[in-house]
Amino acid sequence: MPTLLSEHACFGGVQRFYQHDAQAIGLPMRFSVFLPPGAEGKRLPVLFYLAGLTCTEETFAIKGGAQRVAAEEGLILVLPDTSPRGADVPGETDSWDFGVGAGFYVDATEEPWSRHYRMYSYILELRELVLREFGADPARCGIFGHSMGGHGALVLALRNPQLFRSVSAFAPIAAPSRCPWGEKAFGGYLGADKATWRNYDATELVASGPVRFPQGILIDQGLADKFLPDQLNPDVFEAACEAAGQPLNLRRHAGYDHGYYFISSFVEDHLRLHRRQLG
Amino acid sequence: MPTLLSEHACFGGVQRFYQHDAQAIGLPMRFSVFLPPGAEGKRLPVLFYLAGLTCTEETFAIKGGAQRVAAEEGLILVLPDTSPRGADVPGETDSWDFGVGAGFYVDATEEPWSRHYRMYSYILELRELVLREFGADPARCGIFGHSMGGHGALVLALRNPQLFRSVSAFAPIAAPSRCPWGEKAFGGYLGADKATWRNYDATELVASGPVRFPQGILIDQGLADKFLPDQLNPDVFEAACEAAGQPLNLRRHAGYDHGYYFISSFVEDHLRLHRRQLG
Repeated sequence: MPTLLSEHACFGGVQRFYQHDAQAIGLPMRFSVFLPPGAEGKRLPVLFYLAGLTCTEETFAIKGGAQRVAAEEGLILVLPDTSPRGADVPGETDSWDFGVGAGFYVDATEEPWSRHYRMYSYILELRELVLREFGADPARCGIFGHSMGGHGALVLALRNPQLFRSVSAFAPIAAPSRCPWGEKAFGGYLGADKATWRNYDATELVASGPVRFPQGILIDQGLADKFLPDQLNPDVFEAACEAAGQPLNLRRHAGYDHGYYFISSFVEDHLRLHRRQLG
Repeated sequence: MPTLLSEHACFGGVQRFYQHDAQAIGLPMRFSVFLPPGAEGKRLPVLFYLAGLTCTEETFAIKGGAQRVAAEEGLILVLPDTSPRGADVPGETDSWDFGVGAGFYVDATEEPWSRHYRMYSYILELRELVLREFGADPARCGIFGHSMGGHGALVLALRNPQLFRSVSAFAPIAAPSRCPWGEKAFGGYLGADKATWRNYDATELVASGPVRFPQGILIDQGLADKFLPDQLNPDVFEAACEAAGQPLNLRRHAGYDHGYYFISSFVEDHLRLHRRQLG
């Protein structure tokens, strides 16, 4: 059982912060869970939120404004951290877009990252833990995320559609193999051979496989997002979805930027959509 | 005109951060404003939110979750900082409950605080600025706040019911003359003569004056609030209201603590009530 660090009543439910020994990471990891009112003893649907660069398990809990709707919809929210903490890899805190706070939801294969930086496997491990410890319904797990976490949500879902039955994203890094953030992260964690990057690139995964989400994927993108021109590539993902027959609802929002004022403005739509798709 | 530092689209409106030269303070001050959609050219009602110890003009914008309802209700939100910044008073950063981040919404009379620590007058100055620059309706200004800011909101409103026509609070320091936070702050800013404290004590103001808010005052208080036993004294304020005939709706919430998970859970009720009371 994970160790309860703190809890806060919120919208009739409770926002909890936990620490546990993560097998995939080989270190203690923190995560947060929102349990809606009346959760005890019920098999509730659960929605994982993967956060972006520099964020922690607390960011979305504080800034996302999602608990009101999660309480109404009877959804459990699970908020993982964004990287190992305390791996003590030389240089891991030198950049804000690589290393600590920037695990990119991949299993690193390159030394010295490969020992602890295994966030892809960690999210799957955390899913198992949540099903076991909080009684969430294994048939009703969804996933979404923001920026680096939008990339992570798309990749986790596209590779495991039997585990995550609904997926959406805010301003995801939608084609990481062809943007500076992704090239730096994948080059560092996975090495120079770009063939190994494909399994972590949502655009490549959509292009190469069957349609996994016939009910559609929702993506919200702000058009005043300063990272849109160079890093995010939603149009590339959109073209891949269209070519593959994967339904996509890519909503472009004039004036909105990359931050949580944007996310909180549209988070209700995501929660209600996941709830409907999960049934 | 204040200098625009940044702006973020949010729920169809915009969250803006400004800096201006504050006459009452004698230093630059920051504040934040949420303008609901369609604000331009309209005389909209405006609601001031005074934040608590250690907070800034950003705290409620990030954590309060109020923009959704403000957008729906057509309310302007104004979020001041909690103290002067850069006054360079010796010792002003030594405590988290006195000095920087802890202006307590009083006009200090004691050296060396009296030159810059004049947050009471500053809030009134900021009200004038907002009416002038954002076209807010002077007849429809409300005020609320949290903890130290709940104290500030009650005091500002009780002393200026013609300027602030509606008032509410989350976990306010409701009788500051008789709690450790208030004794430290008032002793430091106002001096040892407790007669001078009365003008900044909501309980004293309610007890000594006419009924200013016949439509009632809303206060939300969490019963798991660790500051409730020693610092907040809502029961003392409640008794004073009852004796004075001031209607009070003091809602006690089992399980809720002192933080923004509590505030965000009930903020919608406050905004809708202010909107109704302001007409």
